[in-house]
Amino acid sequence: MPYVPEIPWLKETPHAQKFLVGVSGGADSVALLHLLLNAGLRKLVVCHLNHGLRGQTASLDAGFVAELCAAHGLACEIDTEDVAALAESSGKSFETAGREARHRFFAACAKRHRCPRVLLAHHADDRAETVLWNLLRGSYGAKGMREHQTITVEGRELELIRPLLGVRRWELRRYLHELDLPWREDASNAEPITARNRLRHEAIPQLSLISGRDVVPSLWRAADAGEDQDEILGWALDKAKVLDPQGRLHVPAMRELPPALQRAAIFRFLHSNGIGDLDRELLKQAAALLEPENKSTCVNLPGGRHLRRRGGRMVVE
Amino acid sequence: MPYVPEIPWLKETPHAQKFLVGVSGGADSVALLHLLLNAGLRKLVVCHLNHGLRGQTASLDAGFVAELCAAHGLACEIDTEDVAALAESSGKSFETAGREARHRFFAACAKRHRCPRVLLAHHADDRAETVLWNLLRGSYGAKGMREHQTITVEGRELELIRPLLGVRRWELRRYLHELDLPWREDASNAEPITARNRLRHEAIPQLSLISGRDVVPSLWRAADAGEDQDEILGWALDKAKVLDPQGRLHVPAMRELPPALQRAAIFRFLHSNGIGDLDRELLKQAAALLEPENKSTCVNLPGGRHLRRRGGRMVVE
Repeated sequence: MPYVPEIPWLKETPHAQKFLVGVSGGADSVALLHLLLNAGLRKLVVCHLNHGLRGQTASLDAGFVAELCAAHGLACEIDTEDVAALAESSGKSFETAGREARHRFFAACAKRHRCPRVLLAHHADDRAETVLWNLLRGSYGAKGMREHQTITVEGRELELIRPLLGVRRWELRRYLHELDLPWREDASNAEPITARNRLRHEAIPQLSLISGRDVVPSLWRAADAGEDQDEILGWALDKAKVLDPQGRLHVPAMRELPPALQRAAIFRFLHSNGIGDLDRELLKQAAALLEPENKSTCVNLPGGRHLRRRGGRMVVE
Repeated sequence: MPYVPEIPWLKETPHAQKFLVGVSGGADSVALLHLLLNAGLRKLVVCHLNHGLRGQTASLDAGFVAELCAAHGLACEIDTEDVAALAESSGKSFETAGREARHRFFAACAKRHRCPRVLLAHHADDRAETVLWNLLRGSYGAKGMREHQTITVEGRELELIRPLLGVRRWELRRYLHELDLPWREDASNAEPITARNRLRHEAIPQLSLISGRDVVPSLWRAADAGEDQDEILGWALDKAKVLDPQGRLHVPAMRELPPALQRAAIFRFLHSNGIGDLDRELLKQAAALLEPENKSTCVNLPGGRHLRRRGGRMVVE
């Protein structure tokens, strides 16, 4: 019997349901596709976005994916975006521009196929790398990847599902090897930036060596803790009734809270108003608006906006 | 004017107060001592524990510290412990055995000098390294170092204070260099384990290189988030009234909570009962005791103890 990694998500999923599947042609997404087919899922729409890098090689990736779909009688969506140009013109990082382009592409496929569910091949090692990556970039608390994530793209809800988050990279490779299934090596057209690759191939092995253990499970634990903390924070803010019926921050309720919870409430409130990139200093300034003796009633936010205290409420203007 | 790092703690501290100061003779603790003297603190008792490694060199460290005290007219406590033997006989890591030996030594000094306050020279880079180190070892959430920490050693409360947590390592070196103050290079008799040194000298610089930024402040941010999350959790558990007046977990109150908060409550409860080393699996099993339909009423804990549900309460036996 060949080796087949266990995927709890497959057991809970009606196999007659339709799914979009993101397939780059690399080992991870090809393994995902075969695992889905192997489990009996048939209503799959394979979605492949060429990120407009690596010219000829990228076309070969697209061709490989198209053939794979033909061989299994699957619907196939292939499109190309010049992500480098998008990044250039928008001033965003290649990583961000690429993610946004993929999301727009998935949203278009979702509309065409009347299916908002997208399966992605991110696995357990990706999850660990993401925690470390976000930590090194100064995330406030551990931010990993979630098995289920709902995003809104151009007014449309997309459900991103990552069934492989509990499966290690080596398990996927072993599965492909044992079944002699081909894939496109280095079909990682979404990641021209070498930083994440260096994190994967240099930093994580070195950290495992230094600490005398496989650090990947340790990083999952941090991701678990981050998810738990988000849940606890949600409960606490709900319990504290920090929002009034109009969704504004309620100053008297906020004043009852410990400073850390005040800052977290303000962080979530600003985030829900589309304001990110908040450092601790700014959150402390914003929390200081709650002090009755504070004569200032306004704090400048990124993007030319303001947080203002007025009539017992805090609002973004 | 020579460079003097800013230390907010010094401004809030009555300089006539007495303090114990942990001094290994290395750059960090020697800089701390000079900074304290420079700020006008005089009632200082210098405490130096020889960890019983490195033979002759360690004696030279102790001699250096003794001379430093004599030159400034400071009380001086010097003692030796064979930490390697302690680790061997107790089955604890050298790191843990060393920390426990230092705490016992500080407790003895505290008793002799009627002063429970111990100043330690941990700085901003140590704080970052500790976050990363704990993360790699699988800590549940970011665990850094705190400026104030109260510990109990043999029934005695000790207050550990780290005034330098906001000061970088290079700032302390620069201060010593500019004032031409000597120290003992490598007087790190508390750290024969090279893992932490490799983290400092290899991993952190490499992570900074890969991510294109100084990762030390990013790691502080994780430590800040961890402290905030502890504060928020404390508030939430208090609000949820999870403990009855006898300090037992109150099952009906626990049942009202989201799973993450149940696990966190159980984690804190077990921790306060001296039970550490709890993995997520065990916490999930323990939380499952709360389900009314669960026939099992007991979960095995490390160290041969049990968590039992009985009469609407959960207790450790």
